[in-house]
Amino acid sequence: MTLRMYLLSASLVLGAATTSAQNATPQPQPQSVQVEQPRQVILIIGDGMDEQQITIARNYLRGAAGQLLLDGMPLRAAVQIQTSTDAADGEPVYVADSANTATTMATGTITSIGRISTTAGTDEDLTTIAELATAAGLRTGIVSTASVTDATPAAFATHIEMRLCQDADSMEDVRYRDIFLGECRSDLKANGGRGSIAEQLAESDVDVILGGGSAHFSPVAEGETVSTLELAQRNGYEVVTNATELAQATGGKKLLGLFSPGTMPVRLRGEAGREAEAPHASWLNHLHPYLGSSSLPAPMTCEPNPDFSGVPTLRQMTDAALQHLADANDRGFFLMIESASIDKQSHERKPCGSIGELEQLEEALDSALTFAQSHPHTLIIVTADHAQAAQLIPDESLFSEFPIPIYTPGKLARITTPEGGRMAVNYATNNFSMEEHTGAAVPLFSNSEGVGRIPPFVQQAQIFEITRDYLGL
Amino acid sequence: MTLRMYLLSASLVLGAATTSAQNATPQPQPQSVQVEQPRQVILIIGDGMDEQQITIARNYLRGAAGQLLLDGMPLRAAVQIQTSTDAADGEPVYVADSANTATTMATGTITSIGRISTTAGTDEDLTTIAELATAAGLRTGIVSTASVTDATPAAFATHIEMRLCQDADSMEDVRYRDIFLGECRSDLKANGGRGSIAEQLAESDVDVILGGGSAHFSPVAEGETVSTLELAQRNGYEVVTNATELAQATGGKKLLGLFSPGTMPVRLRGEAGREAEAPHASWLNHLHPYLGSSSLPAPMTCEPNPDFSGVPTLRQMTDAALQHLADANDRGFFLMIESASIDKQSHERKPCGSIGELEQLEEALDSALTFAQSHPHTLIIVTADHAQAAQLIPDESLFSEFPIPIYTPGKLARITTPEGGRMAVNYATNNFSMEEHTGAAVPLFSNSEGVGRIPPFVQQAQIFEITRDYLGL
Repeated sequence: MTLRMYLLSASLVLGAATTSAQNATPQPQPQSVQVEQPRQVILIIGDGMDEQQITIARNYLRGAAGQLLLDGMPLRAAVQIQTSTDAADGEPVYVADSANTATTMATGTITSIGRISTTAGTDEDLTTIAELATAAGLRTGIVSTASVTDATPAAFATHIEMRLCQDADSMEDVRYRDIFLGECRSDLKANGGRGSIAEQLAESDVDVILGGGSAHFSPVAEGETVSTLELAQRNGYEVVTNATELAQATGGKKLLGLFSPGTMPVRLRGEAGREAEAPHASWLNHLHPYLGSSSLPAPMTCEPNPDFSGVPTLRQMTDAALQHLADANDRGFFLMIESASIDKQSHERKPCGSIGELEQLEEALDSALTFAQSHPHTLIIVTADHAQAAQLIPDESLFSEFPIPIYTPGKLARITTPEGGRMAVNYATNNFSMEEHTGAAVPLFSNSEGVGRIPPFVQQAQIFEITRDYLGL
Repeated sequence: MTLRMYLLSASLVLGAATTSAQNATPQPQPQSVQVEQPRQVILIIGDGMDEQQITIARNYLRGAAGQLLLDGMPLRAAVQIQTSTDAADGEPVYVADSANTATTMATGTITSIGRISTTAGTDEDLTTIAELATAAGLRTGIVSTASVTDATPAAFATHIEMRLCQDADSMEDVRYRDIFLGECRSDLKANGGRGSIAEQLAESDVDVILGGGSAHFSPVAEGETVSTLELAQRNGYEVVTNATELAQATGGKKLLGLFSPGTMPVRLRGEAGREAEAPHASWLNHLHPYLGSSSLPAPMTCEPNPDFSGVPTLRQMTDAALQHLADANDRGFFLMIESASIDKQSHERKPCGSIGELEQLEEALDSALTFAQSHPHTLIIVTADHAQAAQLIPDESLFSEFPIPIYTPGKLARITTPEGGRMAVNYATNNFSMEEHTGAAVPLFSNSEGVGRIPPFVQQAQIFEITRDYLGL
C-alpha cells in the first residue's frame, strides 16, 4: 500500500469514526472503565547535541559543578544511530546527517544521507509519525529554530529524495554559488511527485508549523499562479510572522509561523562576533614543529546576538504550539520541537551560538515539563540526531612541561565562563568552512512517562516505535 | 584526623569487633532477621572510554547495528567530571586527567591534575575506598592493564603529590629524556612521607594487585637494602609474573602479579603496526587550500598484536582476582578493574589498540556478571574517568560535492570493519606526539544492584559515596 493509499484509507476510517461519534448518543461510562485522557508526545531534538555539546553548555550556563534541566530528567539513555546507502548491497555508513536521522525518528526506517522520509535506493515514501497521528485524529505540530523546510522538521511531514529541495525554485538544479549539489526532478508534481518541501508543508495537515524559512515560501508553487505561502493560506493556514502575531493567533485554523527568511538568529554569539580561530605559529615553528613559538587565540566571552531580539524564542514557539495543540483537544497530539543551531553553529565553529541554542532547548523543555504537570499522559523525549565536531580540550596542554609549541591543528575558541574558568572548544574535523558531523551515540532523556518504556540503550528507530505505541497509533 | 590516625582508629575498632566476634557464642538468628550475605563492589574503569570510543568499538566488534555487553546493562547514566587547581581560589578546570579523576572515584574528593589521593594545594592524604574496606575487614583488589603504579590503580591505595613518582628512583627528579617533569621530595620517607607509589603498594594491605609495571618494583626501596619487590614479599605478597603462575597462586597470601615491565601489551594493533596518519596534500594545495588535491591515508584492518600473546588477559586477571577475593570470605570485597589502554592507545592515535582494549573490558564485565549471578549482593559499576581525543568522522566528507580538497587537519585512521564498512577515526586535539584528553561527561553502567541506587546523572564523587554506602563502610 502506498502512503497516499494508506492515508486515504486511514482518513476514511477516521471519517467513519467521526461520523459515528457525531451520530451516537453519549452513553454513561461504566464505573470500571476509566475515561481515556488524551495522550501526547513531545519530542525535542537538539540537533548535534552530543555529550561534548551538553558539557560545554553546562559549564557555561550552570558551571562545572552545575546541572542542566536535562540532567534532572528521571531517564537517561543512549541512542544508536544507523545510516544506509542507496546501494542495495551498500556498506554500512558510520556517520549520519540530519535528514536520514530525522527520517529514522519520524518513520522508524533507516535511510541514506540527505533523504527526507523516503526509502534508500527505491525512493518510496515512508509514513511519518505525524501522518499516523493525523490519520488517527490527533493534532500535530512542528517547531524549529531552523527553516521549517530544513531536514529535521521536513522529515516529520514531507517526502523527498534530497533535503536541499526546500522550495519550488530548488527542484531542478540545486546550487551553492555555481556548484551543482543535486536535483529532485522526480519529485516534481509534473513527474508524479509531491513537490518541494515548502509546497508539501503548505499542503500538509500539520496543525502547527513554527520556525524560520519564509524565503522558501516565496516562490510560485508548481502548477499554480500563487506563492507557496498563498498555497498554504488556501490550504487553511493562518500565517504569522512575528512574536506579537504568534501570541494573538486565534487557534481556530491551522497555524504557520515563519519568523525569519532562513535559520532563525541564535541567542548568543562570540564577543564581537568572534568564532573559533587558528592558533598562530611563529616563522620558526613553520620550519619545524619543535622550533619557535605559538600563540592561542585570545580568550573571549559570549554576548547576546543583536539579531536575536526580533524573533520569538524557542520557548515562545513551544508555548504557542502547546496551547494550539492542547486547546479543546480530547484526542492528544504529537509535537516535534527542534533546537537546530546547536548543530549549525558547531558547523560554523561558533561555540557561543551552540551554547545559547542549548539554553533555548532547556527553556522549551521547561515549558514541556510544565505542560506535563497539568497533562499527565505526556511523554517527553529529548534527544539528538547525531554527534557534532566540537570538543572541549584542555586550555593548557596536558603536556605543557615540554618546551615545544603545542597547539591544535584545528580552530579553537577559548571562552571565559561566567564562573571565571577558561573553556577551550576545539573544531578540527576538516579544513573546510564547515565542520563535519561525528559518529558517537547520542543521549536521550525522558520524563517519568518514559521510565519503563525506554530501555538504557535504544536504536534510533525505536524512538518512532515508542512514540507510536504511546499514542496508540 | 589524619589518614594514618583514621586507619589506626578504624583498625582498633575492627580489632575490637573481631575479638568480640571470636569470644561470642553464636546466637540463633531470630526468624525475622536475615543472615547478612557478603557484599562486594566491582568497579570497572575504562580509561578514556567516552561515547566516541564506545561507538568506534561497537562498530568494529559488533557492527553498526550490534550491541556490546555494556549496552545490555540495565542502568546507564552520565558522570559529571570535576577538577580543581592547587590554588585556594583557583578557577575551575574543565578537562581532567586520570590521576585527579581516579582520586575522585577512590576518595569522593575533587583534587588537581596529577595528584594521587592527596588534597589540592594542601597535599593532605585522602582516605580511599580500599582503605575503608580494609579497615572494615573486607578484602580489596586492584587490577589494571597499565602498570599497577599508574594513576588509576595508584589512587585506590596510595597517596602522593604527583603521579609520575611511580618508583623509588623517580622521587627527586622525574624526567622524560632530559625534560624535567616534576618531583615528590616531600613524599620521601626521609621527609616524613610514604615513599613512591610502588613502595606504598609493596607495603599496602591490598589483597590482590595484578597488572603491569614490574620495572617500578626493581629499584631498591628507600631506606632498605632490598628491591621494592622484595619489600612486597616481606610484607606478605606472593609474587607471580605470568598466566601460569597466576592460575596456580594458592590464595593463602596477598597476591602481587606483575606481568610486564610497564603498560601491558594491547590485544589489537593496526595492520602492520600502522596508526592514524596525516592526509597527504599536493604541492598546489600547500599553496592555497582551494587548489590542488589531497589523499587520505590508505584504509587498514586491525590485526592481533603479537606482543599480546604472552600476557594474561584482563579476563584472566579478573577471574583470578574474583577467586582470591571471594574465597572463604564472609565479609565481601572491593575490586577495581581498569582497562587502561583505551586511553593510552588514543593518546598514541592507535584506534585498533583502543578497540581491543575495550573488548578486554567487555570480557572483564562478562566475568563480573557471571560472578554476580552466584553472588547476588554484587554491585557492578562500569564507567570512564574522562573523555578522550578520538572522533568518528565521515569517511567521505559531508561536503564532498565541493570541488576542493577537504581533509582533516589532524591524523586519520580509516579502518575497514569486519562488516565491510569504512570507519574514519580522527585525532586532532594537538600537534604533539600525544593527544589531549577531552572534557565531556562520560557514561556509567550498572547491573540490577545499581538500579534505584544510581541516578541518571551523577557527579564523579558520588561513585565513591555509592560504593561506600553499598558496602556499609
